[in-house]
Formats: sequence, structure tokens, C-alpha cells
Amino acid sequence: MTPEGNVVIPGASSYNGLGLVPQMGWDNWNSFGCNVNESLLLQTAKAMADYGLRDLGYNYVVLDDCWSQGRNSSGYLVENPIKFPNGMKHVADQIHALGMKFGMYSSAGILTCGRYPGSLGYEQKDADVFASWGVDYLKYDNCFNMGQSGTPKISFDRYNVMSQALNKTGRPIWYSMCNWGDDNPFDWAYSIANSYRMSGDIYDSFNRPDSRCPCDEAIGCQWPGFHCSVMNILNKMAAIQARTMSGGFADMDMLEVGNGGQDDNEYVTHFSLWALMSSPLLIGTNVLTLTPANLAIYSNPAVIALNQDPSAGGGIRKWRYSVEDKDEFGQGEISLWTRQMQNGDTVIALINGGNSTRTMNATAKDIFLDQATAGTFMPAAELKETWDVYDLWANRLSTTEAAALINGTAPTITSASNSTTRYNATAMSFEKGLQNNATALFGTRVGTLAPSGTWTAQIPRHSTGLYRLRKAGSGLRKRDEL
Amino acid sequence: MTPEGNVVIPGASSYNGLGLVPQMGWDNWNSFGCNVNESLLLQTAKAMADYGLRDLGYNYVVLDDCWSQGRNSSGYLVENPIKFPNGMKHVADQIHALGMKFGMYSSAGILTCGRYPGSLGYEQKDADVFASWGVDYLKYDNCFNMGQSGTPKISFDRYNVMSQALNKTGRPIWYSMCNWGDDNPFDWAYSIANSYRMSGDIYDSFNRPDSRCPCDEAIGCQWPGFHCSVMNILNKMAAIQARTMSGGFADMDMLEVGNGGQDDNEYVTHFSLWALMSSPLLIGTNVLTLTPANLAIYSNPAVIALNQDPSAGGGIRKWRYSVEDKDEFGQGEISLWTRQMQNGDTVIALINGGNSTRTMNATAKDIFLDQATAGTFMPAAELKETWDVYDLWANRLSTTEAAALINGTAPTITSASNSTTRYNATAMSFEKGLQNNATALFGTRVGTLAPSGTWTAQIPRHSTGLYRLRKAGSGLRKRDEL
Amino acid sequence: MTPEGNVVIPGASSYNGLGLVPQMGWDNWNSFGCNVNESLLLQTAKAMADYGLRDLGYNYVVLDDCWSQGRNSSGYLVENPIKFPNGMKHVADQIHALGMKFGMYSSAGILTCGRYPGSLGYEQKDADVFASWGVDYLKYDNCFNMGQSGTPKISFDRYNVMSQALNKTGRPIWYSMCNWGDDNPFDWAYSIANSYRMSGDIYDSFNRPDSRCPCDEAIGCQWPGFHCSVMNILNKMAAIQARTMSGGFADMDMLEVGNGGQDDNEYVTHFSLWALMSSPLLIGTNVLTLTPANLAIYSNPAVIALNQDPSAGGGIRKWRYSVEDKDEFGQGEISLWTRQMQNGDTVIALINGGNSTRTMNATAKDIFLDQATAGTFMPAAELKETWDVYDLWANRLSTTEAAALINGTAPTITSASNSTTRYNATAMSFEKGLQNNATALFGTRVGTLAPSGTWTAQIPRHSTGLYRLRKAGSGLRKRDEL
Amino acid sequence: MTPEGNVVIPGASSYNGLGLVPQMGWDNWNSFGCNVNESLLLQTAKAMADYGLRDLGYNYVVLDDCWSQGRNSSGYLVENPIKFPNGMKHVADQIHALGMKFGMYSSAGILTCGRYPGSLGYEQKDADVFASWGVDYLKYDNCFNMGQSGTPKISFDRYNVMSQALNKTGRPIWYSMCNWGDDNPFDWAYSIANSYRMSGDIYDSFNRPDSRCPCDEAIGCQWPGFHCSVMNILNKMAAIQARTMSGGFADMDMLEVGNGGQDDNEYVTHFSLWALMSSPLLIGTNVLTLTPANLAIYSNPAVIALNQDPSAGGGIRKWRYSVEDKDEFGQGEISLWTRQMQNGDTVIALINGGNSTRTMNATAKDIFLDQATAGTFMPAAELKETWDVYDLWANRLSTTEAAALINGTAPTITSASNSTTRYNATAMSFEKGLQNNATALFGTRVGTLAPSGTWTAQIPRHSTGLYRLRKAGSGLRKRDEL
Repeated sequence: MTPEGNVVIPGASSYNGLGLVPQMGWDNWNSFGCNVNESLLLQTAKAMADYGLRDLGYNYVVLDDCWSQGRNSSGYLVENPIKFPNGMKHVADQIHALGMKFGMYSSAGILTCGRYPGSLGYEQKDADVFASWGVDYLKYDNCFNMGQSGTPKISFDRYNVMSQALNKTGRPIWYSMCNWGDDNPFDWAYSIANSYRMSGDIYDSFNRPDSRCPCDEAIGCQWPGFHCSVMNILNKMAAIQARTMSGGFADMDMLEVGNGGQDDNEYVTHFSLWALMSSPLLIGTNVLTLTPANLAIYSNPAVIALNQDPSAGGGIRKWRYSVEDKDEFGQGEISLWTRQMQNGDTVIALINGGNSTRTMNATAKDIFLDQATAGTFMPAAELKETWDVYDLWANRLSTTEAAALINGTAPTITSASNSTTRYNATAMSFEKGLQNNATALFGTRVGTLAPSGTWTAQIPRHSTGLYRLRKAGSGLRKRDEL
Repeated sequence: MTPEGNVVIPGASSYNGLGLVPQMGWDNWNSFGCNVNESLLLQTAKAMADYGLRDLGYNYVVLDDCWSQGRNSSGYLVENPIKFPNGMKHVADQIHALGMKFGMYSSAGILTCGRYPGSLGYEQKDADVFASWGVDYLKYDNCFNMGQSGTPKISFDRYNVMSQALNKTGRPIWYSMCNWGDDNPFDWAYSIANSYRMSGDIYDSFNRPDSRCPCDEAIGCQWPGFHCSVMNILNKMAAIQARTMSGGFADMDMLEVGNGGQDDNEYVTHFSLWALMSSPLLIGTNVLTLTPANLAIYSNPAVIALNQDPSAGGGIRKWRYSVEDKDEFGQGEISLWTRQMQNGDTVIALINGGNSTRTMNATAKDIFLDQATAGTFMPAAELKETWDVYDLWANRLSTTEAAALINGTAPTITSASNSTTRYNATAMSFEKGLQNNATALFGTRVGTLAPSGTWTAQIPRHSTGLYRLRKAGSGLRKRDEL
Repeated sequence: MTPEGNVVIPGASSYNGLGLVPQMGWDNWNSFGCNVNESLLLQTAKAMADYGLRDLGYNYVVLDDCWSQGRNSSGYLVENPIKFPNGMKHVADQIHALGMKFGMYSSAGILTCGRYPGSLGYEQKDADVFASWGVDYLKYDNCFNMGQSGTPKISFDRYNVMSQALNKTGRPIWYSMCNWGDDNPFDWAYSIANSYRMSGDIYDSFNRPDSRCPCDEAIGCQWPGFHCSVMNILNKMAAIQARTMSGGFADMDMLEVGNGGQDDNEYVTHFSLWALMSSPLLIGTNVLTLTPANLAIYSNPAVIALNQDPSAGGGIRKWRYSVEDKDEFGQGEISLWTRQMQNGDTVIALINGGNSTRTMNATAKDIFLDQATAGTFMPAAELKETWDVYDLWANRLSTTEAAALINGTAPTITSASNSTTRYNATAMSFEKGLQNNATALFGTRVGTLAPSGTWTAQIPRHSTGLYRLRKAGSGLRKRDEL
Repeated sequence: MTPEGNVVIPGASSYNGLGLVPQMGWDNWNSFGCNVNESLLLQTAKAMADYGLRDLGYNYVVLDDCWSQGRNSSGYLVENPIKFPNGMKHVADQIHALGMKFGMYSSAGILTCGRYPGSLGYEQKDADVFASWGVDYLKYDNCFNMGQSGTPKISFDRYNVMSQALNKTGRPIWYSMCNWGDDNPFDWAYSIANSYRMSGDIYDSFNRPDSRCPCDEAIGCQWPGFHCSVMNILNKMAAIQARTMSGGFADMDMLEVGNGGQDDNEYVTHFSLWALMSSPLLIGTNVLTLTPANLAIYSNPAVIALNQDPSAGGGIRKWRYSVEDKDEFGQGEISLWTRQMQNGDTVIALINGGNSTRTMNATAKDIFLDQATAGTFMPAAELKETWDVYDLWANRLSTTEAAALINGTAPTITSASNSTTRYNATAMSFEKGLQNNATALFGTRVGTLAPSGTWTAQIPRHSTGLYRLRKAGSGLRKRDEL
């Protein structure tokens, strides 16, 4: 049925050629809402380049809602002249000049969520104007949709109009569908969009349940809502992970790292799992005020490499259990997530959502369950292997290094660098770096998983152990050999 | 995604220009059912003016079902000549002469719920006849709808026909959709209606579950039913509160205050929360037999001011817990609701649905949760403030004062009055009064919430503590300074 | 919202003039399935007349599936000539000659459930042939419907075609919709059909859960199935009872009384509640082998009178509790059902679904709950009344009397009879008999409910106490006065 | 309502004449995925003939996804020339030459699940090319369906296009619908397809819950997913078993027997219940590496005879209980399934899903429940009978016998053989063999069920007791009489 890992896909593909791996970048909404203007975008873009974020792959600068002044007499959208005194094309040009790409926003309704004019009924005109401005990306929301929902077909038809309109412009424009998971888009959106939101809006909380985010599953959710926590969204992915794929990725919403509502361990979990699940990685904070610690999270190349892996798939939740040490919101769960990478490595994430540090175990049987039950009529070879275990957070930038990046005093990284902490994807793509076993993409070896053995680790409260398993002797130099 | 509080909306708006704040008035259904006639309407209207209700904003007089004699040979609806011997235009004229507005009723089906002719297929004819009579408001029901439901699109299309027809008359007519929440109208109705029912019919019970009201959530409810209690309807709002908005309000159904099925504390809770949630405030009892105590509930300007606040939004349920002291129906819950007002104040409602008085706490962390998790990349300023706490029920009319209103012996209130208990919104709108810190709209100061502190109060069984938090020193005179 | 009891309806009505009260009669399916033929129908009809069943109102003789031989070259349905050697018109004529009416069966699909030709696409042809045969009633099933379901609109449109076709014949034909409750027909079927099944098929079990009847509620049930027990179907009615109404009744499926799968108390419960809920009363057993005990159940005029009451409404489940004394299927529940009758009486049913006899209580507060919470702004008058309590099963035919009916030795009953056990509705309609306080329709007075008091009774395992409450001194003679 | 057992069906039927009993054969997907080519198919077909599988009825050789090279300039599908160097017609011819039939695969979408061209929009062209190649069977998947789902009607319409296209070719082609159970195909698929998947994909696990298979019921499942266990799929059948029928069978997905993820008892359970439920029996492992033990499971004629019984129906789950001895996945349940066969026998399956051997009981009351509650107004005759009990696994091939089949050293079986372990359905159909009481189809008599008695057996962990009950003295020779 589903495009599983064991299907030999005839080459990664996409309906419009874009999106073979998830998008990365920045979107102003989470931190700035409607307070948008030219200088915010351009200063942020410049900072992203300066801090090394652009060269880590964060290259889309996305302007969200509230940029519009309405439509002109010909029906074309016009930018707000106070917020964008030099016009939107100027913004695009400046961002392009930095080697980055420019994204904009509209809604598949008569109004945007902020009550500016929406694109329903104006799809081609709006696509044309975006293309004329040099826009590379469209986030397309779901507010004021005039009741055009209720079955996959009704929603598909509405979103497909803009998909066709964008294609017709001739300009390659990443189509980022934002219908919040209404009408099960994981069953159809990848045929017409490069990414699709699968949940209500995230908020800056690790796991607090909120009455405004009523669904625990993405499936059949009739009211996605908003104020969805990191763990709420992550667990919604478990059932539908097979439907994030090359060309059309399930979008778990923007990253909250740096916004202040979670502690460092929680942000590490948030970032790790968004990367592992092949969610878009869109920075959702104020880059200009980023702390070294938070920059270090956003800048971990070994984690980003999971996200940009050519396998372009989602992690699998192998188990999830309730635990007794509940936190202040009455929550407490642990889980194991795994994902097989393009090069044969396997990544495991042990999440401790309990309220205290615990010893956690990942057995080879669980890690390689799919191989053992895949109908291969042979015992799974993976269970006979010894695996080297690499900790993907071991080489996180130190506060000093990150501060140097912010201060502009850090050294440049090139494709020839063998830094263990930094990476330049502009110089060498992640795909290439992974093929070349680029040091920065593989963390630090911290132990071994014996054949049919068990990996054991101490995981702090609300944190994640993120490990990359490589066949022993697979050619990667150990850190102490560097 | 949603039109949240922190979005800067480009001016309050409405699809037809009406309904920037919720409607207030009276509807005969709950108390009189089909026993309608001219004198009931006109006597009630006069009493509403005499008792000060009109000047508190209750200005729509709504005639519900059973007024019709059928259609004439041209297909136009005709009023029952025995119930309305002077014709319906006369009724409208008399009501207008009192400075009030006139509402009528029909159904988006072939029959009304009382089996009188419905408007399905006759939308424009019926809208025209309503306009010709001088009607200002249409309640539009859902009975006998010929199966035209099942997706938002099907219901939207059916209700949109009347919306367009009303607009076409050229007369401003408030469109009050009453489809009971079928097909999730909170996702679409605000684009075509000024208010929309989001639940099955209310009945005069605080919290008794009834088999005829089977849903606990509004979301995806396939059978809204009727005999829904106050607490049932209130809790249905928690998930969808973001979709009550300027121009199109979620309608929690008419007020039962005064009908005898609940005690005073329960009615206070009912009225407080309907106001806080920006539900329409439609008196659903016999005004002519109103007791002083019940008039005092309907007449609290500090509570009505929440409802008529220009922010035009719904309260948020921050938490809800089950408690052990169950009542006779096996129910027992407590909850905290909050809402941010246009002027920067925050209102909190502590509901005790348990069976005995209890101490309840609202922490600043819960009250200002949204500010702390909004992605603002800065600590929430609200947590550093000291807040003066005003009890919004402290200045409720005494029985003596209310009796004087009923007896016609109470003094007149003007815009210059600094009464703490009464208000004249005809003389000065609530919007203006709020800007001017009009005394009657702000209750009595009863204490202080320290920075990051906790507000504690004793709340009786089935009652609510309703408080308005103002930044300390924000200019409002204390009561003893008056 | 709903056509509640307190709405003054402008005269009972029906879309096609039929069905102001529920149909009564016999249908061969439950006992005979496909083993149908002329003599079965005619012998049964004659026995129904002989046993007094016809004169109790059981006047529809309904031939179910498997009567067809296919379509002729003109596309008209042809009866099986072996089963019906004299043609179907002859059957109708003979039944009419007995003063009874003739019903037939088809399906809104390409095949009937027994895989005979269905009417989908042949609606007018089939309606015409039924009318030409003198058919008075059509049971219209749901098998092989070519996927035409999924929303109320899709199902409505399919069933409406036959409704229109029947109307077009000019012959009054009762339209009995049998779509098992798919797509919530309780929300629309009464506009196009005289009765509509609201559940999967009944089977001859009081309360055994069966995996083939997966839904506990009628609402949103996507797979009604079959093998639904008496209690399963009854409880499905609780939420939707307001939508059984004059002109279009919710059909709880045929009666199993006499089929051997339940004991006498269970059959009494089954019959009592089907009557109280205004379900069609269709005998579903072999009349020719009926025992006196089972005939006595079918023949209780005081219970039938509830069913044929002009109020034409359904009972209300006021409460339902789980009890500890579970039966062999792990089931155990008790409940109170009430219904207000046209003449101001109130009927109560106390159901003991537990495994042993128990004392059960019905308080006036529960019985008259609706009156106390109806928004009448006055205390409920009913709580101040003293009520005489009549046991509606007290006058059940004795075995001797019932045997005499079967043997043809019982005396004739006329409109002048003041029998307490038998009634002739051919001579005097139930409506008339109720107005006249006909003795047989009111059971035996067994006690009094004091103002705001409690009615207490011993109810055996799997049985029901069925009582009619009359205002004390309301003119009905007590039994000992007769 | 439903085509139950007690309906006298006017001859087994099918919309296209195919599929009076379920298909049997082999499909490469579970074991080989996309690794397909001519020699795999032809070698497998030859082995199936050699091992006796073909003559047991496994005669469809089905090529699954990934065979295509795309479309030619005329829009016709072209086979991959490397995998199929002699063209697809050659494959079909070779398979036909072995007396077997050839099946292929496509999807009702724009792409197949493996991202090869799908048939949506190309239905007639693709049906024509399949017919021209001599294809006898089409598995038609659901990937990339462009949102054409959400109601039975939408899915029906999409799948019906191919149904009509196949019929139009004039070639009899078995239409195997694979929409995973979306939109409740058990309510409509049998009108347009010979079999229809009713669940997400199976995986080689007895009962481990997997987050990617989120539904426990087939009814209304909005996300069938994959990685569904044997017990998950089986239990989904309980509610819908009435809708597997002659002409259109519910497909529980391919058999995992032999793939290594389950133990022998589990595979016996899997095979027994797939047979009992009239699921297609499609071998889903590598035939060329089949062990004797697994061949012996696939080759049990007494079990296959259940599947190929002319009654063409599904088993009924009479009860299901949770048990305390949970296994490593926290699962533990027991259940009784029964089915009435064409010749009057009844089959019972006692499943022990607990973690240890247990004594299990099947009472006559449970076994013959349907007869006792069928409305027959007579006690069930079956409860008065004495039944001989035959163990259908008693005559399973020994390892030695199975090895001989694999080695090609086993004797030939003809229609005259009275082997107890082997059967040749090519020589004598199962229908004929059942009529003739062919020895191999009836297992070994192991005891007796007394009138209204109880059958008791020891059932090991994760295993099934499968028994055929025959009226005592019904003419079958006992094994010791042979």
C-alpha cells in the first residue's frame, strides 16, 4: 500500500520538481505576527547569512500574513507601502542578492487569517503577481474558506487551483500548503504541494495540553485548532509518517526554538524530532536576538543532515509508554523513534517525556522490527551486525563558538573543512557530504550495539537521546583519529 | 492559523457591516414557544425600555416561530391575522418607535420547526417581505432541511442563499444562523452570518446531562439535539472560541435567567460566561414577570461590558479539572477561563461546578499563559506587573434598586452619571464608556495580584468568581475615591 | 430547534397525508425469510382478522423480499408465478376483501438484499406496477446501493426518487424507508417517508451484544449491521426520539414477540417500549402458530393505545444507570422512560435490565423534568398534582381468553363494549376511544403518585413496569366502579 | 437487511460472472516488493505446479507493482524491458501453458504506490493493454488518488471506471480492488469488484500493535495504514463479515505464512481464519524457498475446502474476551468463530490469543446462536442433534510428505485418490469433492458434541482449534474405517 522503505522508488520525484528534501529557512509569524516590514526581512536575511545559518541550508526567508494593502482596480494584490516602501520586488531582489530565496503568504479563502484579502477566486492573478515579484515560495493558509471542506475531494480541489496557477507562471515556486490537516491531506497533498501542514498551529510549549488544540491524532481531526504542543504534533505524525515523502513533506509547523517557552532539553527534543521526521525546518524566532545556546541548536549539522537526507522519509514510533513520573501538566510518556537513512545507517531517538532522568533501552529487535517483519522470508541481516553508535548532539557548538558566530568572529567553513561542529552546505550539499562521510554530519561515536543487543542511555527529563547507528567498520573515522 | 488575539486586525470588520459586537435583546421562544402575538411583543418591548434593559443594550425584540398563516397566492408569507391583527409592519413600527429593533424567524427548510412554511426555495421572496415589513434581524433555523447537510460545503451553500438574499434587499438585516452547530459552522459561518448557533438548544438546567443532547464537544457533533445544559454548551466553546469574532459570533443560545430551573449562583454563572464568551445576550424569559433578583443579573453593566468589548473575542479555558464533590447529577468540575480585553485588562472567571464552596486559585502563569508562549522571544511583560483585581459582581443592583426599576421609581441614568450599578448605553456606547473608564463598567476593587502571583477566592457551589484585572495605577479611581 | 412537546403544532401533518399515527400489521421476514407465497399471506391475513388483531389496528399485511421473478421485456417487475400463481393483484384483492391493506418490498439498489432485481434506476416503473396491483405500502431496503451514501444529501436524494414516484402514481402508498439508519435519516426522512428504520436489523434477543451490530448509538453510525438486540435498538432511540413524528415515524424494526428467543418478561418489555416510542408495530412471527401468551402481548389495547395516540411522539429516557447484577451476557442496566400523551396523561416505563427483581423508583421530579425546565418562568403545575397510577399490563388477556380467540370461541367486541381486556379499533378508532375514556385503553388503577412524590414498584428481571398517570379525579372510572 | 445465511439466494451470482468462490494464488509483493522480473514469475509458477499448490487451487500468479517503464507516445503502458525482456504477453502465455492464470497491478491514482504511472484517467487504455497481454486479474491500488475519496460515492465512482473498462474489454478479468477499506467498501465494492481489501496492509506479525495501523475497526476507518497484524485484520472482519459474498469477497490481504515473523501455531491460526472468512488465499512468500512445514500449512485441503465452499460466506465471531496472560506486546484475547457450510456442517474456530495453553469451550448454544434467534418461532433443530467433531488440522502433511513434494518425489493425486492429506482440485473441484465427501476435505473425527452440549479442547498459546461439526451418522466414514 504505502510507499514504504523497502520499495525501490524509481528516483526521487516531485510533481513540480521542487522539494526532494524538506525546505529550511525562516518565517516571521511565530515571533512577529503582523509586525512585518522590509527591514525586518532584510536584516534577518543578512543575519542568517552572517551566522552561518544560510550555509547550513536555511535559505528561504518567508514573509507571513499582513503584508497587503488590498487589491488594485485590476484585481492584483498590492503591498502595504508603509511596510514595504520600495515594493516587494525590491525585497525579493535583496534576498536573492544574499543567495537566499523569498517566500510569501496568502490564504485559500476570501480573507487571510488576519483579514487581509485572500486568494480564493483570484488564484491565477495572485500567482502571477507573486511570480512577477520574484517570489520563490508560497505559504497558503486555510482561513475564511467559505465552507469548502468536508471531504478530501473538496479540499483537494480548492488547493489544486493554486497549485495549477503557480505551475502556470513558469517560475519554480515552492507550494507550502497550510490547511492544518483538515480532510486528511496526508492522503493527497503530496500530489499537488511540496509541503503540507498536518496539524493545528504549534505553540511554544513542550507538552501542555490546550483546549484549543482538541485532537490527539491527525487522522480524521475535524478541528485542528492551534496551541498544539511539540509532543502533540510529534505523536500525530506516528500514524501518518509514511506519507511524508520526496516532493511533498508533512509540515509539523515552524520551530519555536529560542522563543522562551521551553528549556534547553525540550528545544533539543523539538529540533531533533522535527529533523528526524523530515519536517520543514523553519526558524520561528527573532534571529537578531538569538542566544548562543539557541543558535547552537539550530546549527547542529549532524541533526540537519537527518532532515536533508535523500531518503526523504519520516521516523517510525516503535513504542510509546505512559510513565508514572508525571510533570506539572499531568503528562509523562516515553517513546522510541527510528529511521533508516539512505546510506544504510539507522537513527534512533529515545524520548524521555517523564519528569525525571531515566535509563532507557532500545533493543535491536525494536530498532530493526521492520526488517524482521517485512516478509523477506529470511532472518533480518541487521540483527547479526554490530553497530557503532554515534551521539548526534555530542558535537553541538559550544556557547563560545556560537557567540563567535553571532559576533562575526568565527572562522569561515569550506567544503574542505573537517570541522566536527560546523558545516557549509552551500559549498557541499548534504547529499554529497553524507556520501563523503563528512565529519560534521555524523556526531561522535559513544559505544556499540552488539548483534541483537540493547542500547542503553541515561536520558534527562523532557529530553532526547539521538543516535546514529553505523555498521561497525563502515569507514567513518572515529573522532580520536581525526 | 486562527485570528488570535495577538494578530493586529486591520479594523474590526463584518461581511455585511453589522455585528461588530454581539447582539443583545429578547426572544420569546424559551418562555412562550408558539404563544405569540402583537401585544406580547409590544408589552415586552415597552417593559424592556421601562426597566432600563433597552439602555443597557438589549435592543432587538425577536419574534420566534409560529407567527405565520402560510403563503399567499404569490408565494409571499402572510402573518397570522389573529395573532397580528394590525399586520407585522405595525409591530415593527411600534418597536422602532421605542428605539428598538425588530427580529423575525424562519427556517432553511421546507417547514419551520413548528411545521409552518419554511424558506427553503423561497429565500428571496421571504427576505423581501421581511425587509418590506421593516425587519432588522432574521433567526434562521434548520428544521426540515431536506437532507441538505453532511459537509460544511452543503450546509454553507444552503445558508448562503439566505445570506445573499438578505443583502440583496438593501436593508441592513442581522443574519442569525441557527443550524445548531451542524457541519462545524465555527469554520465558515462568520463569512455569511452575524451569529451562528454552535450547539443544540439550551434548557433551563445548570449541568444535568440529558440523553437528547448527546454531544460533549461541538466539533464534529452529528446530532446537536436539545436539552443542553449551561455547562454542556460552555465547555463546547472551549475548543472553538477562536472562531467567535467581530462580524460573526458563536451563539450559545438564549439566556434562561429567570425561568426557574436554576438557582441564583447558577444564573450568575450562566450570564457571566455568556457575556465573557461574546455570545449573543438574548433574554429568554418573560420580562413582564421578572423578579428584582433576575433583573439584577441581566442588568449588570460591568458584565455586559465584557460582552460588548470591541475586542469581540471569546474567553479561553485555561484548565478544567474533575472534583470529588459531585452533585445530584453526578457532575463536578472546576475551571478557569480568561480573556484579554481591548484596553489591556484581563478578565478571569473561576467556576466552581462542585457541590460545595471551595477555595480556588488562579495563577499569573495560567492567566498569562498565552503571552508567555506566544513566540515573543521575550519574557511576558504581564508577569512582571502588579494587577488590581476588580470583582465584577460586587456592584450588582440590590433587590431594592431592581424593584424600583420594575416599579418605575428608579432615577434616570445619563452619560454623565457615575453610578456604580447602572449604565445607559444609549447615551454613551460601551466602547466609549470603556475608553472613559466609566465607573459602572469596572466593578469594585477587591485586591491585588502580585507579579507572578496567585489570585485566591472562595467560590460557592455552582458559582463563578468573575474578576477584571487592571494594571495597578492604570487610572481607574477606586470605589472609595468616588 | 426540535419539534418538542411544548410546540403547538398546526394540526398533525404528513408530507403525503398518510401516517398520522404509526403503522401496524405483519411482515413475513423475521419468521419466514424468503419462504413466501400466496397462501402464507392469505392464511395469515385471515388469522389476523379471526384473532382480533385486525380490529386492534394490525391491518397491513406486508410481503417482504424474494417474491420476484425478475423484469419483463418492458422493464416491469414480474411476480414469481410458482409462489404467486394468481398474480399479485389477486393477493391484494383478497387482502382488501378482509378489510386489510397490502404491502410489498423492494430495495433502493440494483438488487434486493436477497439478490432479486432492485428498484434503483427503475423507481417510476416499479411504483407504477405496485400501484397497478393495488399495493398500499412499500418497504424500501438499502442493499446493493452502488455506493450512493456518505452524506444525508446523497441518501436523501436516492430515497426521494422513490418517494416522488409513489406520489406520482396517485395511489396512497405508505412509504416505509429501510436504510437502517445510514446517514442519520432521523434528520431528514420524515420529509419524504412515513416511517424510516433507525437501526440495523433486530434479532430475537433481549440484550445480547453481537459483533455484527457494532453501534451503540444511531447517531453517525457508519455500519448499522444486523443482530441488534431489543435493548440496543431502544437505547439508540434515546438521543433521537424527538424526530419520530406525525407523518414520519422512526421504525425500530419488526416485533420478535413469539419467535422463541426471549422470555415473557422480555417480550413484554419489547412490546411496551416499541409502543411507547411510536415505533411501527409489525408482528414478526408466524401468526398461525401463535401461543395464547404471545397473542395476549400483541393484543393489549392499553399498550397499543400509547402507540396510536394522536400525540405521535417518542418516549424520553430520563435516566439510565448501570447495575451490578449482570446477566449471562454481562449486561445490567435500569432506566426510566416517560411520555406525555395527547390527553394530558403521562406514561412511565421502569425497565429492569438487571439480573434479579428490584425495587424501582420514579420521582415526580424526573417524570415532570421537562415541564420544570421548559423555560416557563413558573413552577411546573404537574408537580403540585396528585396522579392516579394505572398499570397498563394489569388487564392483559388471560391464557384462557387468548386461547378462545385462537379457537374462534371468543365473543365479538363492538364500540359499545366496556371490556377491560379487548378493543375494536375498526368500530371506534383509538383517537376516539381515548377521548371517550374507553375502559380497555387505560389499564387498572394500582395507586397514587402524591404531589412531588415517588412511584415505587417491584420489577422482575428483564421486565418493565408500564404505568399511565392520570390527574386524580380526571373522570376515569376505577375498575371496581365498573 | 443483510444477505444472511438464512436467505435463499437465487443462485450464487457475480456482477461479472467471476468469483463465486475466493481467488487463490500467489502475489510477489510481500516477499519481493519491487524486485520483479520474468524469471521470478515463471520459476514460481512452475514450483507451484510442482509442489501441488496449483492443483490445490492456487492458480493466480500475480505480478505486483514496479513492472512498468512508463507510457508510450500513444499513452499505453509499456513493461520494463530489462525485467521483462520477452514482453508481458510472453509471461502470460507461459503461465497459461502451466494451466494457471496471470494477474497484474495498477493503481486508481496518477501514480502507483511505487511511483510508476497509475491508471487514473487512463482506465480504458490500461484495461485494453492488460486484455491484449492475456491478463486474467487486476489488483487495483489506491495510491496518489488525487483526493478522490471521502464518501462511499466518491470512491465508488473512481473504482467503477476501471470496473466498467475491464468489462468492456470482453476478456474475463478478475477485479481485485485494493483501496484498503477507505470509505467502507464492504458496503458497495461487491457490486463492481470480485474482491476488495478491507484493511491496511498486513505485516508478518501475529498481534503486535503498530502505530502505522491506527484503526481497530474497519468501519469508518479514515486511515487504514499498514503494518496491520493478523489479529488486527481478523477482528476488523467481525462486524462486516456479512458483506463478503459470492461474486465479491472481502480481502484480508496476502498470507504471510513462511515469511519468518510468526511461529507455526500463529501461521496455522492465520491460515485457518483467512480460509474460514472466505478471504482470498494469496501466498505471500517466496515459494522457491518454502520449508516443508510451511508448505504443509498452505496445503491442507480440509482447510482450503472451507475457503472454497459454495456457501461463500464469512465466519461469525460469537464471543471475544480479554484474558489475563498477556504476551510480550501486552495482548491477550480468546474468541470463538463459527460458520455454517453449504452441506449443513458447521465449522468452529477456538482462538487462544493468550500467552499460555488453555482449556477452551464452545457451547452448542453459542455455536448455534443464529439458529436459535432467527425468528423461526420454533426451537433450533441443531440443538437437538448430536454432532461428530472433526479436527481439520489432524491430517496436516508430515514434514516428510511435504519434503517429498518439494523434492518432486511425492506420488500423484487424482480424483480417485482417497488420500487423507492431499487433494487435486484440478481433477475434482472442491464443490464436487464436498458433495462426494472426499476424505481429504473433512479432517479426522476426534469426538462428539452432545445435544446442547459443550466442545472442550486444549489450545496452545497463539493457536487455533479448527473443527468441522457434522451431524452424527451423516455418511462420512471415520478415519479408522478407511
